[in-house]
Amino acid sequence: MAPCGEMMQQPTTFPRLSPEDQKRLDDLYAMVEREADFFIGYPCNAFFDYAPLYRFLSHPINNVGDPYVPSNYHLNTHLFEREVLEIFQKLTHIPEDQAWGYVSCGGTEGNMYGIFLGRELYPDGLVYYSEDTHYSVNKILRCLHVRNIMIKSQPDGRMDLEDLRETINIHRDVPPIIFANVGTTMKGAIDDLAGIRQILDDLAIHRHYIHADAALSGMILPFVDDPPPWDFRAGLDSMSISGHKLIGAPIPCGVVLAKRAHVDRIARSIEYVGTMDTTILGSRNAIAPLFLWYAFRTIGLEGYRERVRYCFDVADYAIERLRAVGRTVWRHAHSNTVVMNRPSDEVVGRWQLAVQGPIAHLITMPHVVRSQIDRLVDDIVKYG
Amino acid sequence: MAPCGEMMQQPTTFPRLSPEDQKRLDDLYAMVEREADFFIGYPCNAFFDYAPLYRFLSHPINNVGDPYVPSNYHLNTHLFEREVLEIFQKLTHIPEDQAWGYVSCGGTEGNMYGIFLGRELYPDGLVYYSEDTHYSVNKILRCLHVRNIMIKSQPDGRMDLEDLRETINIHRDVPPIIFANVGTTMKGAIDDLAGIRQILDDLAIHRHYIHADAALSGMILPFVDDPPPWDFRAGLDSMSISGHKLIGAPIPCGVVLAKRAHVDRIARSIEYVGTMDTTILGSRNAIAPLFLWYAFRTIGLEGYRERVRYCFDVADYAIERLRAVGRTVWRHAHSNTVVMNRPSDEVVGRWQLAVQGPIAHLITMPHVVRSQIDRLVDDIVKYG
Repeated sequence: MAPCGEMMQQPTTFPRLSPEDQKRLDDLYAMVEREADFFIGYPCNAFFDYAPLYRFLSHPINNVGDPYVPSNYHLNTHLFEREVLEIFQKLTHIPEDQAWGYVSCGGTEGNMYGIFLGRELYPDGLVYYSEDTHYSVNKILRCLHVRNIMIKSQPDGRMDLEDLRETINIHRDVPPIIFANVGTTMKGAIDDLAGIRQILDDLAIHRHYIHADAALSGMILPFVDDPPPWDFRAGLDSMSISGHKLIGAPIPCGVVLAKRAHVDRIARSIEYVGTMDTTILGSRNAIAPLFLWYAFRTIGLEGYRERVRYCFDVADYAIERLRAVGRTVWRHAHSNTVVMNRPSDEVVGRWQLAVQGPIAHLITMPHVVRSQIDRLVDDIVKYG
Repeated sequence: MAPCGEMMQQPTTFPRLSPEDQKRLDDLYAMVEREADFFIGYPCNAFFDYAPLYRFLSHPINNVGDPYVPSNYHLNTHLFEREVLEIFQKLTHIPEDQAWGYVSCGGTEGNMYGIFLGRELYPDGLVYYSEDTHYSVNKILRCLHVRNIMIKSQPDGRMDLEDLRETINIHRDVPPIIFANVGTTMKGAIDDLAGIRQILDDLAIHRHYIHADAALSGMILPFVDDPPPWDFRAGLDSMSISGHKLIGAPIPCGVVLAKRAHVDRIARSIEYVGTMDTTILGSRNAIAPLFLWYAFRTIGLEGYRERVRYCFDVADYAIERLRAVGRTVWRHAHSNTVVMNRPSDEVVGRWQLAVQGPIAHLITMPHVVRSQIDRLVDDIVKYG
């Protein structure tokens, strides 16, 4: 060891940005504020305030591993994460004694987890998913090295069940792993889960797995009066719901929910962190569970019911206004995704509209106000 | 549309927590503060202050997709992310015109990405990794469905190259994908990359892929005087470095760096977000790149050199103190991971020490001060 005089001491203050760097950061923030005013194209709610939680960001918190198993890494929020999961488990009607889940980094992780569980259960399984499925699923299937077949969609975005029936019928020798959309990315369409179950019954297929991607609609359908079958009562094995979508968060996040029996198959105890390695990502951020907990505990389920009604009202307002200027525009009954024929690139760029071929959508998330719709309509009148 | 009087209006304020919930949150925070004082077992630096960046958390920022391609989702920090990548590319000596990368959610994503690229390049490839490799790699290999063989380690934690040579020799018909540790989790050992390259040369194996997990040491070795070969100059194809380790962050994060040619093989353009789906997670948090940018721009490379020296000084102090009370304790020359024989469960629990069989480690990260080492030593004297 070096003599005392030469020993490095810990600095006691944090250096600051140079004026030039501070200006660049300020400019970035100004850009974000400016663009936020035109943010109506993606299903991410911007109406939130988690400032009371920022103090937790002064520590290296980490929810490493399984939220249900105590960890050696004490700086975690597992307790609050489990409460969040309990709320989602109730909203999605998975029986408590069969339930497992964790707060994920968002849809890719959640959907990867579901397909991973399905593939581990049926290593020779074949994944079926519609052509309206989120683009990331293609990458997930490639990562997971699992056989898969894309099924045709109907024009309204739902999976074409005739195509599904015929395709499964041809491959009855291997268990189907159904990747169902509960709210497609582009059109907010909900795949007919009852119809899918009927096909499996008709073909006497007892070994199957159904995962649902309910990124946005998983926080809408619990709050509408007459939803179609969409949750664990409809026979799901797992599902993924985003946290940064209807709830809203500055960090992409979500929950993945699954039947515990499937998860037990892949569990493995890890001494290093004194927990189970049951999650796809090992180190997991501990602030997102707090965001979700805080949202539920402040806004409440009644508050979310009102938010969903508000979203639908603004969606209807947008449809009325866009129709009045001659656009073809529609939405599914239980969706705030407003589908229209594609406007000019000028409008798409300015309003960050998501596009796919001849169509575009806007999504009336809780932060979207009618005056923004008015400005969008003005721009469409002006630029087409 | 409902008549105007019935239309839902957007709420204008955010509700607050109930006093009971506020108390629970306060209790959680008090627990985190209390435990932080005993946080010396994991390689996560707690000495950071990102408060000047919190304002960005009031918006749904998202760095979806490829950081090098403009996205329709304008609320992003891609520009700053690319600067962070540029810094890491220089530190790891990957030629600029061959470089690609992105800010990840941490080690699991980064290492999954590397093995994914290797497997896509060599679908029949066989992954070799030592038994001292981080536990998550087992899960990654299972996810990716790739053939793999675990290689023996030497007692100091480095891969046993004799075992590697013999094993590769038996499987010369398939390309090796080497998963190398640049700093093992438990002992901070650096696999002998020059030796590995020599084996590949000796066996005339021209088709190979080398990924390095440099979670912690990737931010140590650029700042020591005589590092062993560890970066792209040593023939790497990709590597993963954590951001929440030596740099420190309240959200697990990291960078994955790879040769662009490998990434081009998997790239796919996605119209929906107007970008490339080249990242494992699609939606990616946009605050972590700002944390890393801020850290580099305030602390600077010279500052990190000092921090690394400080970590080594405190590590040496810990070794001296622990030896003085009769413990077997050591560290690798370029590592702040202090390995010792396992103390009592009392001590392990209180100090959140990471353990594996008969050994434990503490890691002298930049937040660890000598007085904590003194208290640890006192506890070891008391409880064994």
